[in-house]
Amino acid sequence: MSENKEIEILLSVYDKNEEIAALTNTKLTNSGIYAINVMGAPGAGKTTSLIEIVKRLNNVTPYVIEGDIEADFDTKTLLALGVKAIQINTGGACHLDSPLIDKAVEDLKLSNGVLFIENIGNLVCPAEFMIGEHAKLLVSTVTEGSDKPYKYPLAFEKADIILLNKCDLLPYVDFDEEFFMKGVRALNKNAPVIKVSGKTEEGFDEVVSWIMEKVKK
Amino acid sequence: MSENKEIEILLSVYDKNEEIAALTNTKLTNSGIYAINVMGAPGAGKTTSLIEIVKRLNNVTPYVIEGDIEADFDTKTLLALGVKAIQINTGGACHLDSPLIDKAVEDLKLSNGVLFIENIGNLVCPAEFMIGEHAKLLVSTVTEGSDKPYKYPLAFEKADIILLNKCDLLPYVDFDEEFFMKGVRALNKNAPVIKVSGKTEEGFDEVVSWIMEKVKK
Repeated sequence: MSENKEIEILLSVYDKNEEIAALTNTKLTNSGIYAINVMGAPGAGKTTSLIEIVKRLNNVTPYVIEGDIEADFDTKTLLALGVKAIQINTGGACHLDSPLIDKAVEDLKLSNGVLFIENIGNLVCPAEFMIGEHAKLLVSTVTEGSDKPYKYPLAFEKADIILLNKCDLLPYVDFDEEFFMKGVRALNKNAPVIKVSGKTEEGFDEVVSWIMEKVKK
Repeated sequence: MSENKEIEILLSVYDKNEEIAALTNTKLTNSGIYAINVMGAPGAGKTTSLIEIVKRLNNVTPYVIEGDIEADFDTKTLLALGVKAIQINTGGACHLDSPLIDKAVEDLKLSNGVLFIENIGNLVCPAEFMIGEHAKLLVSTVTEGSDKPYKYPLAFEKADIILLNKCDLLPYVDFDEEFFMKGVRALNKNAPVIKVSGKTEEGFDEVVSWIMEKVKK
């Protein structure tokens, strides 16, 4: 098979994904759901951040779809907190796609609230595929280093809000905040960058304020 | 297009990758090169680990191929240390593939030594694609958390050696070493797991001993 044919086919898979994502987005909007695609590298603290956010939500029902290649620790943690959460295991795939989310949305029977979709831990592929979300939340960390916006630009470019997590470890790591911010702003003029710590709970009130602003609109 | 047809085409792309990887592997072996595919999440400390390893190599020429989506900081760092390094920018792709490496190997004009191929920071896709290597070295970190083998099994299953990096931060993070090791051993009986720190340089002598054993064979 020619290389052009292969590229054409890969593009058709991509287009189909975007098409279903747009339909899911409309369904969610019509059900009064604001959906947030939560992205970040493995171990960035996506679930920990979700727990801190969910704890602070008032008068809004949170729903969570947990994406993982395997295992369901995070869903169990969220269910134990009384959150309506379901697990998706991709069994190898490196990002969630819109057909998976469309099915999960049907299963969750959502209405009026905010839906967090925790993507696979991966700074690359999740940023390329829409899954029906209204906004993308990126969790980056001070332990990953300040060069991440330069090396993984798409995730930073597409984020609507960026959490800089594990700030409690700042005294122990070499993290150049100015260089990090310069990299972020070269790609993304508007997304707020909020310093947080899942350990000290610093910064999450501000994150929740941002979310509530969006949900109310 | 039917879903079956799409799957068939994706498999053919995959098969072609493996075929070229096998040819590259033979070329490298014939040139006296032992090649190591260096994998890990974004910010795991792959380059920092390479620097510590290269510093300790005696009577063996190190070569490095640096894979990044964008940017070339790491190659500049390695070149400044006198290492023969070249940069590959995938411009978006989430893993290195064998045609890219085959071309880079030609360009580097390698003979007799050890070639480190630093893959894209990603715990998922790099583990799926052979790139001509003789061994896979995985860098995991205590800051990413102890559940990583459970969530990203393939990388841990396929690794020939695992570095547990950032051990200098152990006093400040919740890392359950027993749980981590249980997860690793359920997938991989044999790979040594070596605790290292790019900051204190702990553990790298042991890593280099392992590499030298392989190179001599």
